[in-house]
Amino acid sequence: MLPSSTDARPGTVGTDPTGGRPVVPAHGTRRPLGLAEIALTDGFWSTRQQTNAAATLAHCEQWMEQLGWVASFDRVADGTIGPDRPGWAFADSEVYKLLEALAWEHGRTGSTVEEDAFVRLGARVAAAQDPDGYLNTCFGHGAQAARYSDLEMGHELYNTGHLLQAAVARVRTVGVDAFVEVARRAADHVCREFGPGGREAICGHPEIEVGLTELGRALDEPRYLAQAALFVERRGRGLLGPVAFGPAYFQDDVPVREATVWRGHAVRALYLAAAAVDVAVDTDDAELLAAVERQWTTTVARRTYLTGGMGSHHQDEGFGEDWVLPPDRAYCETCAGIASNMVSWRLFLATGDVRYADLMERTFYNVVATSPRADGQAFFYANPLHQRTAAHDAVDGEVNPRAEGGQRAPWFDVSCCPTNVARTLATWQSYAAVAEPDGLTLLQYASGTVHVELPGAGPCGGEVLGLDVTTTYPDAGTVTVRVTAAPERAVRLRLRVPDWADGAVLEEGGHERPIEPGFAEVARRLVVGEELRLELPMAARLTWPDERIDAVRGCVAVERGPLVLCVESTDLPGVDLDTLRIDPSVAPRAHGDGAVVSGRLVDPAPATGSLPYATAPGHPARNEDVEITLVPYHRWAERGASTMRVWLPRT
Amino acid sequence: MLPSSTDARPGTVGTDPTGGRPVVPAHGTRRPLGLAEIALTDGFWSTRQQTNAAATLAHCEQWMEQLGWVASFDRVADGTIGPDRPGWAFADSEVYKLLEALAWEHGRTGSTVEEDAFVRLGARVAAAQDPDGYLNTCFGHGAQAARYSDLEMGHELYNTGHLLQAAVARVRTVGVDAFVEVARRAADHVCREFGPGGREAICGHPEIEVGLTELGRALDEPRYLAQAALFVERRGRGLLGPVAFGPAYFQDDVPVREATVWRGHAVRALYLAAAAVDVAVDTDDAELLAAVERQWTTTVARRTYLTGGMGSHHQDEGFGEDWVLPPDRAYCETCAGIASNMVSWRLFLATGDVRYADLMERTFYNVVATSPRADGQAFFYANPLHQRTAAHDAVDGEVNPRAEGGQRAPWFDVSCCPTNVARTLATWQSYAAVAEPDGLTLLQYASGTVHVELPGAGPCGGEVLGLDVTTTYPDAGTVTVRVTAAPERAVRLRLRVPDWADGAVLEEGGHERPIEPGFAEVARRLVVGEELRLELPMAARLTWPDERIDAVRGCVAVERGPLVLCVESTDLPGVDLDTLRIDPSVAPRAHGDGAVVSGRLVDPAPATGSLPYATAPGHPARNEDVEITLVPYHRWAERGASTMRVWLPRT
Repeated sequence: MLPSSTDARPGTVGTDPTGGRPVVPAHGTRRPLGLAEIALTDGFWSTRQQTNAAATLAHCEQWMEQLGWVASFDRVADGTIGPDRPGWAFADSEVYKLLEALAWEHGRTGSTVEEDAFVRLGARVAAAQDPDGYLNTCFGHGAQAARYSDLEMGHELYNTGHLLQAAVARVRTVGVDAFVEVARRAADHVCREFGPGGREAICGHPEIEVGLTELGRALDEPRYLAQAALFVERRGRGLLGPVAFGPAYFQDDVPVREATVWRGHAVRALYLAAAAVDVAVDTDDAELLAAVERQWTTTVARRTYLTGGMGSHHQDEGFGEDWVLPPDRAYCETCAGIASNMVSWRLFLATGDVRYADLMERTFYNVVATSPRADGQAFFYANPLHQRTAAHDAVDGEVNPRAEGGQRAPWFDVSCCPTNVARTLATWQSYAAVAEPDGLTLLQYASGTVHVELPGAGPCGGEVLGLDVTTTYPDAGTVTVRVTAAPERAVRLRLRVPDWADGAVLEEGGHERPIEPGFAEVARRLVVGEELRLELPMAARLTWPDERIDAVRGCVAVERGPLVLCVESTDLPGVDLDTLRIDPSVAPRAHGDGAVVSGRLVDPAPATGSLPYATAPGHPARNEDVEITLVPYHRWAERGASTMRVWLPRT
Repeated sequence: MLPSSTDARPGTVGTDPTGGRPVVPAHGTRRPLGLAEIALTDGFWSTRQQTNAAATLAHCEQWMEQLGWVASFDRVADGTIGPDRPGWAFADSEVYKLLEALAWEHGRTGSTVEEDAFVRLGARVAAAQDPDGYLNTCFGHGAQAARYSDLEMGHELYNTGHLLQAAVARVRTVGVDAFVEVARRAADHVCREFGPGGREAICGHPEIEVGLTELGRALDEPRYLAQAALFVERRGRGLLGPVAFGPAYFQDDVPVREATVWRGHAVRALYLAAAAVDVAVDTDDAELLAAVERQWTTTVARRTYLTGGMGSHHQDEGFGEDWVLPPDRAYCETCAGIASNMVSWRLFLATGDVRYADLMERTFYNVVATSPRADGQAFFYANPLHQRTAAHDAVDGEVNPRAEGGQRAPWFDVSCCPTNVARTLATWQSYAAVAEPDGLTLLQYASGTVHVELPGAGPCGGEVLGLDVTTTYPDAGTVTVRVTAAPERAVRLRLRVPDWADGAVLEEGGHERPIEPGFAEVARRLVVGEELRLELPMAARLTWPDERIDAVRGCVAVERGPLVLCVESTDLPGVDLDTLRIDPSVAPRAHGDGAVVSGRLVDPAPATGSLPYATAPGHPARNEDVEITLVPYHRWAERGASTMRVWLPRT
């Protein structure tokens, strides 16, 4: 039972030019673009996709071989698995996320390297499946704990959810092959076990829900959607047993459609929310959709970092209360950023509201791009906005026990982030644009090509729109769009103008016009060869926090285009970054891909007692003008151990 | 083998008037006062001692009976104990800490209630001792894990350390009885097992060291000091295996005498430091003493909250890096406050430096006194300085899983704090004064009596000094000291003037003179019946934080005497405390036992986008004058669920 693309059934979606899309809602007017419809040519994200393919995928496979996580599947197959299985209960999911990344990457480029790896790993996974479809290396075999005996922390359905997402990638790049049938049997098993009349239960870590919904979409199997809807509705009713952090930890405190904000473990909260959008869209459940929109609005307004990062607690990897956003103890798990974009993407597809695409851009550049080192072989797990002590990256070849201290590490004890980054980078182009009945919207900017057959239901149904996009974004703010194919009649072409882009200009036919944040729109017949040019203002700018964020009171940050900037000690040798003060009356100036700001270097007031508290305000002992260089946050700590600040106190 | 005070050997220290002292260094000129030498009559701490005796001790015993923690000793004795033993590995230590509290309380008042409870529990503990002296209910019996098979997290020697401290209390209140012999056998077992030629190992949680040192002092057994010194010296050399938080978690990263600051788990760091002072003093090791003084200095200057609380991480219950002192996520474990005072007391005895007594006062009033509810039956485990959401106390009768959310709870899953509070309150008077060769120093203020035979080595050796202290401190700042017995020659009487007490005045013979913080000193022949009167300034005052504490930038706090004050929502119904701004140009006024300050109520600037960040500073939408009432932090949440702030932003 060797899964291989050569087994793919003829006529499946594997041959569909719209394939390669991670999310394909059953309803709605916005259609994400498939692999034959959009491709990057070069630039920021193309470089990262290439590094992902050239380094990260093999890096992940090698680590999971070395640690025995892949071999666990062999040991299930040969009957030797036991309680001594290496890794956490969710180690299986890392293999599945790598399979998903391999499938997307193979689909994107057609490279046989990823296809060979997929077949190699997929066969070992397939061999571990029980006859009834159950597939897990941690429970239910030999002397292991019984199946579903620890729904709170056992991650069994979480693992299965990632298996299903890997199968979705396979269906949408190659077609329905033996590996997809493995996933189908696993999904069928879940529906039998947890469906109506079965166990009235849920998994402590949401994920099965997005897996079931999307595999149901990919295989046109409505039972999977129904099961996902059941899981979503069951949550928040106390079905899970007690854990130390309380039921909010896994969102079992309040039903999804009643919740007002995300709380508890951030990745859990966000995977659940993504599934709730899927269910809401495919079942036309406006109330459920509105609930998730409300949660997004409140969470983004009160519990989200400037980088788009979510989760301010280390202890439970969770959201803090409103306004608890300490930069130094920011957890901002890489996976939470990825999960946030999973939710925002689904909400954008469902509603078309530009704010979701705005947050995605922020999160892509400042969380997702921050995690991997330039060589794609070490990763941030946590993404704090203030690093007080310099720490070298973890030693190559060593597993990092905890994701702390400003270190990128090759692999973690809990190693969810590297494979999550890999599968996200491999699909980045799919979030860059959507086709609509009357045209097309460009959402994220990168040099590349678009060639779309517009949806049949609209006025241009079946007609082709082709675009060449040229830009060095985010280094510069010019985005040139050349029309390479156009319908014979009027079409609506929109370019997103980010929320930060005050002063954007669209040049069209030699005329420039100012564009407010939102969308620059051209609604007319386009001519092949004509060019539109969007100019986004890339001057560095100061950013003020809401007064209620206690942790950054009196501070400002510097941003440039979609990039959050930071001060890194590498650029100020010998200076304690905590002694820098920024002068907000002087505008920052662009400098390389970062900025320079004017400020002062102060010596803290001398202590007057044993404790750092005094009966009068202190007066700094030194007060020296200084020019402060800032660099993009996403590449901090790339030049060696450093301290770092995003927020700087004002003079 | 029933331990009972009737077994106490005649002529032991049980009959010593200087008994009842938790810490008795072998060397040094400062001698803490014993139970026959100092007693409280009424006031702040007397009330708490009475509640401790009337409610807390029985409360703790009842909980440990209910949860089966005491019964575990019976099950060792009857051979039925196994891996199913209830509670964490350190549950034994809670029984020992209760025994210690019972012994001190019996010694303090002579009440038979505590004596009966001690005998009752002590006999059950004694029955569980193995023939070789090993005594532990979690390891080494039946199907349990082998002795010392998990030194990192098993807490075996930690438990034993608390057994020894209970025995110290017994020796110093009743004498050497059968229970003390149990402890002696346990200590001998530790010396055999871990002494020279034995296991070259340490326990993950320091505590055995202070237990061994003090029992060695109490029983005049130098081997115990030597073993404690061995443990102290072995630490910081990587003898413990890896844990998730790294070796700094249990101070195994740097040898004690090389460390510059406390780091890792706060209670562990502080218990270790206390032991290091004991070892340094008794072995005349000036280098080791200087190392702990250096650690105290740096930690207090950079890693200590205004309340005296230590530890800013929830995740590892540990110290943060320098200046990481978020008020909302302050952990400030009650036990860390107690442990901090254990270190400061030992350092004061060793050096006489007033700063140690100053910090003790701060910590007593703002950490130790904050934990127990007025009825002595619920406790804070964590002591944050900012509570954002109101939480009712945990339900009576329910174990609290985690120490979070501004709740006092009757008992915790990890329930170290209640018994630690109990043993500390039962000995509070012993930290209030020291005898010195040339006189006496009053360190903490409470109404009470002192009657001391001055140390023989000094000029007044053998002569008696008697004082009656009358005060309503900290409600008011007047401390009246009446001489009830005096030597025939000059004596030095000193009264501590706290570091915050600018403007203190001493009245002596009808004359007033200003006194700087430090000590008010009278060095002359005292006359029976004469009175000294110390006036400490109790006006409410503003306190400014060091600029480097990012988390409270732009804020001030209000203090009054030794009390940190806080704003509690109970006093400002309907007001979101996060909208308060304090006007630092107007002096706060005293109000009840708290203060009133002028300030403003602001509405935060309206959001300009999805995120709480803007391209320009916001302007509050409302700006209304308000009088802000503040109450002592130590009694916050006593009046029902509330939100709370210690630090308030300035207008």
